[in-house]
Amino acid sequence: MNGADCVVKTLMAGGIDVCFANPGTSEMALVAALDRSPGMKCVLGLFEGVVTGAADGYARMTRKPAATLLHCGPGLANGLANLHNAKRARSPLVSIVGSQATYHQAFMPPLQSDVEATARPYSDWVRTSLTTQDVGLDTALAIKTASHNGGQVASLIVPANVAWQEGASLRSLPPQVALRAAPQKAIEDTVAILKSGEPTALMLAGDAALEAGLRPAGRIARASGASLRAMMFNPRISRGGGLPALVPVPYNVDQALASLAGIKHLILVGADAPVAFFAYPGKPSSLVPADCEISVLASPGEDAVAALEAIASEFPKTADAAPGQASSKPTLASGDLTPDAISQSLGALIPEGAIVTDEALTSGRNLYAMTAAAAPHDWLQLTGGSIGIGIPLATGAAVACPDRRTICLQADGSAMYTLQGLWTQARERLNVTTVIYANSAYAILKQELASMGVSNPGRNATDMMDLGRPDLDWVSLATGMGVEAKRVTTAEQFNDAFKASLGVKGPFLIEAAIGNR
Amino acid sequence: MNGADCVVKTLMAGGIDVCFANPGTSEMALVAALDRSPGMKCVLGLFEGVVTGAADGYARMTRKPAATLLHCGPGLANGLANLHNAKRARSPLVSIVGSQATYHQAFMPPLQSDVEATARPYSDWVRTSLTTQDVGLDTALAIKTASHNGGQVASLIVPANVAWQEGASLRSLPPQVALRAAPQKAIEDTVAILKSGEPTALMLAGDAALEAGLRPAGRIARASGASLRAMMFNPRISRGGGLPALVPVPYNVDQALASLAGIKHLILVGADAPVAFFAYPGKPSSLVPADCEISVLASPGEDAVAALEAIASEFPKTADAAPGQASSKPTLASGDLTPDAISQSLGALIPEGAIVTDEALTSGRNLYAMTAAAAPHDWLQLTGGSIGIGIPLATGAAVACPDRRTICLQADGSAMYTLQGLWTQARERLNVTTVIYANSAYAILKQELASMGVSNPGRNATDMMDLGRPDLDWVSLATGMGVEAKRVTTAEQFNDAFKASLGVKGPFLIEAAIGNR
Repeated sequence: MNGADCVVKTLMAGGIDVCFANPGTSEMALVAALDRSPGMKCVLGLFEGVVTGAADGYARMTRKPAATLLHCGPGLANGLANLHNAKRARSPLVSIVGSQATYHQAFMPPLQSDVEATARPYSDWVRTSLTTQDVGLDTALAIKTASHNGGQVASLIVPANVAWQEGASLRSLPPQVALRAAPQKAIEDTVAILKSGEPTALMLAGDAALEAGLRPAGRIARASGASLRAMMFNPRISRGGGLPALVPVPYNVDQALASLAGIKHLILVGADAPVAFFAYPGKPSSLVPADCEISVLASPGEDAVAALEAIASEFPKTADAAPGQASSKPTLASGDLTPDAISQSLGALIPEGAIVTDEALTSGRNLYAMTAAAAPHDWLQLTGGSIGIGIPLATGAAVACPDRRTICLQADGSAMYTLQGLWTQARERLNVTTVIYANSAYAILKQELASMGVSNPGRNATDMMDLGRPDLDWVSLATGMGVEAKRVTTAEQFNDAFKASLGVKGPFLIEAAIGNR
Repeated sequence: MNGADCVVKTLMAGGIDVCFANPGTSEMALVAALDRSPGMKCVLGLFEGVVTGAADGYARMTRKPAATLLHCGPGLANGLANLHNAKRARSPLVSIVGSQATYHQAFMPPLQSDVEATARPYSDWVRTSLTTQDVGLDTALAIKTASHNGGQVASLIVPANVAWQEGASLRSLPPQVALRAAPQKAIEDTVAILKSGEPTALMLAGDAALEAGLRPAGRIARASGASLRAMMFNPRISRGGGLPALVPVPYNVDQALASLAGIKHLILVGADAPVAFFAYPGKPSSLVPADCEISVLASPGEDAVAALEAIASEFPKTADAAPGQASSKPTLASGDLTPDAISQSLGALIPEGAIVTDEALTSGRNLYAMTAAAAPHDWLQLTGGSIGIGIPLATGAAVACPDRRTICLQADGSAMYTLQGLWTQARERLNVTTVIYANSAYAILKQELASMGVSNPGRNATDMMDLGRPDLDWVSLATGMGVEAKRVTTAEQFNDAFKASLGVKGPFLIEAAIGNR
């Protein structure tokens, strides 16, 4: 068996049956091996950021890794930004990267670069398979590493000759590592805090933010008076349909501080402690009050759901909805097409079982709150701050869940980084409705520059924050990649287009002209 | 003065007056400083690969660095692929990258990553300015480093607080480093080789491949019988109008070996020795005959033009055209729109003073040879093998030379990696004619897979090499970014569209439907 066949067979033995790919010449043996493995679904992205972002979306929905296949150092480099987001989402991901043949590298061919060094800052684990004999074991290790610690990015570099040479052998995988139990002391300490009556917040992420964790968390909140919080940006939250609601930390530093003021205990359940997204002169880095004690109930890789259930059992049984959450859907918006009008209509129109990817940024300020009472759905966010994830994330989520509608809520400036993902949606006939918030600006930068004291920017600043001159025409861009699209300028048009999109088999894009608001 | 003003003032004192940019929040102080410096031209790219590729094109035409401004590790990561190409082109480039404030990094905010480690594999020099006091000196050093050794990528990381704090001071730059003279012994050895009568090739790159180097090289070739060669892929070659012609090394290994067979002496003049682009089973890595002696007349950073003039003076004065080169333009092609028909027509239609960027790949096999007798022009290629350079490279070349027509010859698959550059062409009203070779395939991969013995690929391989289902519609894609475009299906239509494009003020795109040839 050659190295390439061994890699593919090992992936499949490890339960990986989707490969998002943008291969090149040095991956041809791997492409040939994939071609001999029809049980592996290969999904082409026309840019590497689409590939890695899709693998992230797939992993968030399936909680298992996809493989990615990229070409040499520069091809990997194009995928790093969304690998960063995947790493911050703790998405399991097996990143296979081809490289020049081992003996060819010293000749410094044009496409030679240090692939390991390229991978390292955006991977939890990196290895180069230097021999065909080892590539089976290395692939097995990559798969196990990806699922460890709650989800990791494992990068395996496979030189061309290691892939094409004979002499590889399959290695059996050790059994799946189960989640570790959360420490008993952490459970006991959490119960004591919750029973102390002091103002306490539980911050939930990972499995704790899905239904199985939200239900016991809701009972705990109702019984103890604790609040349920989410991080500023979250890999995935299950919402709607009466599930206990998590309140995220606001992006704006002052609002975040106000939102967390008075809390004496912050209990992390698979989550990270809240910090400011960026530093600002005179503002703090940590968002947690100085007299608030932070404790950890469950770390990533620990069984947060079991820990929440154990804690809930220490309280009298109650309903599992947290207090004070919205209970009835909003009505459809009408009139001007503002970001809030879109949020209001989405609250009414998000269909049951939808997957929502949220990279609406400035246009989505009230989006999360205004969709709290929608039909049950999952909410996926930009976890690592590297914009350009929305379209790929929706693509991967839709590959994972072809029978659910994926709704991609997407700022226009961010959409441009990875717009190529629309083509993959058309190729795979994925049921994705993309809403482009077309304000023709990096609106967030305008806000940030104003907060630096530049209230009347000149030509250079305007040129770098304004996406007009010319305006992007998203209907043409989508059409160019085979995705049907429509531009809307009123709330009524938006409502009609959105409703119609839900019945489309395959992708549909709505350009929501929200102007320069 | 704050750190950001100091960076911008130092850049301008160093002669850098163009900044290609895609900034984010952590760069707002730098954006404000650029806004206070109207003498600096800021060019926005909607994706970072556009920014770095444009800076490369600018540098190849001006031989001086532009600055780039990118956002944190992931923003830089998106620019690395074309930074790789710039590094391999020995283009001088000052890459400024913002990062989280120094004191904020330990809080591990979502967008925190190791920016230095991200930059290092694709830079010749990397430094983080840790204090506002040092940022002036560090910027000066970056500028000098960029112009050293014939052109380097210098990456300077500027944390947000280093940019916004007061206390920076301008540092005067040391005088420009002149080119070092090539070693006298190398000149004497080269003369001896050339006078030996043994089969000899001069391989020219850098300044030696521009007019000032080509003229003495042509006289040397005519007097000595040596052949004049270029590398497989070249930063810039001046051509046409009777200039001595360089013959590049073919991409195909067997053709490359045949093309270099019999040469006993290969003399490198700012060039690298030819190696196979990729390794193939049973084929050599080096393309130079085993009994050929490789010597270096001038390394990058040495004065190759003076060395060539010195050598030419050792021979009787002759005309400066190399023997055997094409002397008359081809006629316009007619009939089927094949790659060679386009090449033939381009040979007739390339206007005097044009800048041609060549990322035509498989469609451009005979392109270079068939345009040898065109009007005088410059030819820029994909130097590092990282596809997705053509549109950005043309963009930057057109910013450098707004009064010349830039012609971007572009394979469709590669174009998709950085198509966002079309928007910058529209924004800046750049005189670029883009020709998309629309064959709806990664044609090069089809060839390479066939050479791996897979002659009848199945679904997975086809899915990864075929860009159809759906076909890309380049007229819509260009229109979506404000670039006028036309699809042509015959040679006559191509000729008409290309001629018309030369009169357009601003960009124009031609989708050349060459089908699955």
